[in-house]
Amino acid sequence: MAVYTDVSFEDLEGLLSGYDIGLPLSFKGIAEGVENSNFYLQTDRGAYILTLYEKRVRIEDLPFFLGLMEHLAARGLNCPQPVRARDGSQWLMLKGRAAAILTFLSGISLRRPEAGHCAAAGGTLARLHDSGGGFALSRPNALGLAGWRELATATIARADSVQGGLAALIADALADLERRWPTDLPAGLIHADLFPDNVLFMQDKVSGVIDFYFACRDMFAYDLSVMLNSWCFESDGAYNVTKGKALIAGYRSVRALTPAEIDALPVLMRGASLRFLLTRLYDWLNHDPNALVRPKDPREYSKRLRFHMQVKHAGEYGL
Amino acid sequence: MAVYTDVSFEDLEGLLSGYDIGLPLSFKGIAEGVENSNFYLQTDRGAYILTLYEKRVRIEDLPFFLGLMEHLAARGLNCPQPVRARDGSQWLMLKGRAAAILTFLSGISLRRPEAGHCAAAGGTLARLHDSGGGFALSRPNALGLAGWRELATATIARADSVQGGLAALIADALADLERRWPTDLPAGLIHADLFPDNVLFMQDKVSGVIDFYFACRDMFAYDLSVMLNSWCFESDGAYNVTKGKALIAGYRSVRALTPAEIDALPVLMRGASLRFLLTRLYDWLNHDPNALVRPKDPREYSKRLRFHMQVKHAGEYGL
Repeated sequence: MAVYTDVSFEDLEGLLSGYDIGLPLSFKGIAEGVENSNFYLQTDRGAYILTLYEKRVRIEDLPFFLGLMEHLAARGLNCPQPVRARDGSQWLMLKGRAAAILTFLSGISLRRPEAGHCAAAGGTLARLHDSGGGFALSRPNALGLAGWRELATATIARADSVQGGLAALIADALADLERRWPTDLPAGLIHADLFPDNVLFMQDKVSGVIDFYFACRDMFAYDLSVMLNSWCFESDGAYNVTKGKALIAGYRSVRALTPAEIDALPVLMRGASLRFLLTRLYDWLNHDPNALVRPKDPREYSKRLRFHMQVKHAGEYGL
Repeated sequence: MAVYTDVSFEDLEGLLSGYDIGLPLSFKGIAEGVENSNFYLQTDRGAYILTLYEKRVRIEDLPFFLGLMEHLAARGLNCPQPVRARDGSQWLMLKGRAAAILTFLSGISLRRPEAGHCAAAGGTLARLHDSGGGFALSRPNALGLAGWRELATATIARADSVQGGLAALIADALADLERRWPTDLPAGLIHADLFPDNVLFMQDKVSGVIDFYFACRDMFAYDLSVMLNSWCFESDGAYNVTKGKALIAGYRSVRALTPAEIDALPVLMRGASLRFLLTRLYDWLNHDPNALVRPKDPREYSKRLRFHMQVKHAGEYGL
């Protein structure tokens, strides 16, 4: 979490001449977002986030990401809205990077959400799934099954240097998932990264959802599995079934789960944990010591994956 | 510029129970301040900065730094004001660090200030000098002449690895300064680090002064020299005498310079540039590649120091 591209006030002034959002009062780099540069911008008209897209976000995906936020916001989901420039663009170029100005959302993300927060956030995920209907653009999940195979190939030879037995765990889980990964579950637009960092709360109510830069078209129940993995494990590695029940109940209060989705939950949970295990492992092994971010520990997710490998049916998650 | 200590919302909630500043609406780490962790905090009562003091700021200096900001603000200088906790403390402990909540100032710092900004900022420095009178606490300048000798001893053997001839430049400048450094000029509370980053503007007027963590008791004209060094050189290394004239005139419109201060300006300019050359050189040579900040280039200040070594009288600076 850092600012990768330095933006001076003079750079900002040049950019703002393309927008109609008033005069700047404050402008500060913020330590948020894993791979973009973000700035808090206050003008006499309101508060905004300026995002410069660094290498991970491809410019050709911006119409999808920014358009999706506009689409969801128009359907009442509280998420950042891209502010269009005077010429109608959703983004302009600044210092060689695509740069978008988005509305700033109040609210605070929780490090240790309680069951009530899990329920509220689960309901928000289901509303996001419902609201995505009708959005014209699509984007495949680059971090789906085929992407996991690529990441496994790139990491498996050095995996045991991070944790003994990790290479075998990855190989076994991936082979199992390649046999059993469902393809016929209800699908649509998913967030794909709805960790607690990306849900804002005010007074225990969800005030907004942020960071749509992994959003794609994939199975809804996979998105639910990403959330269960990231919201319902305790720091000692134990699955908290009370939180799991609350999150699932919150989700189902808005959108029903089909019997096939419920049956598939254990395999989806394995897939979701393998996805974060592999991206973290890749980042861990390829970490540039001069980088401004510290990589996240992949072992958090190998522990979760081992847990899921023992799960026999969805009931164990609180369904 | 980074956040060194991770503060969760739950940590923040614990801290806020000791204050009477309302309910949190937003909380974000900001990429500001060289060696502290800073967070932007918005509550239903106002906007604040939470600062966690990392290793460079000693807790025993906090009464001086925070008290000085209270003192200056009470005299009409716009600077962050420490918010006292319910028990009257200027700071509390959070995650093993002293943590203070200060009022947030609107305004934006300029990367390329123009002559008019230099004039306004010079006037602000003089007001700061005038307003410091009557403050009861004192703090010596740890980065004064004796400190330079220590830094020179710690860096000179490796100085030429950074730039050819640097060791000789430092030795010559230091020997000269040890002979000629004035001790009888008007002195009082100085900012000691009033770079453009630390002056906020709104609509070309100064809206505030920030970052008092090098403040100390030393000669006023030395503080002016720090400013001339950091505001009036162009990126190609040339001294911009128009900006220098403007800055000095802005200063003198508020506080007169004595003939002795004017005579001493060339030697003070050498001292001010040596101070930043040495601290940057030390940080450059001792940089931890895993650190979250990139060290600043010391050669910017060796170039300035070489310039000052040729200056014969204060008139060359625009006096």
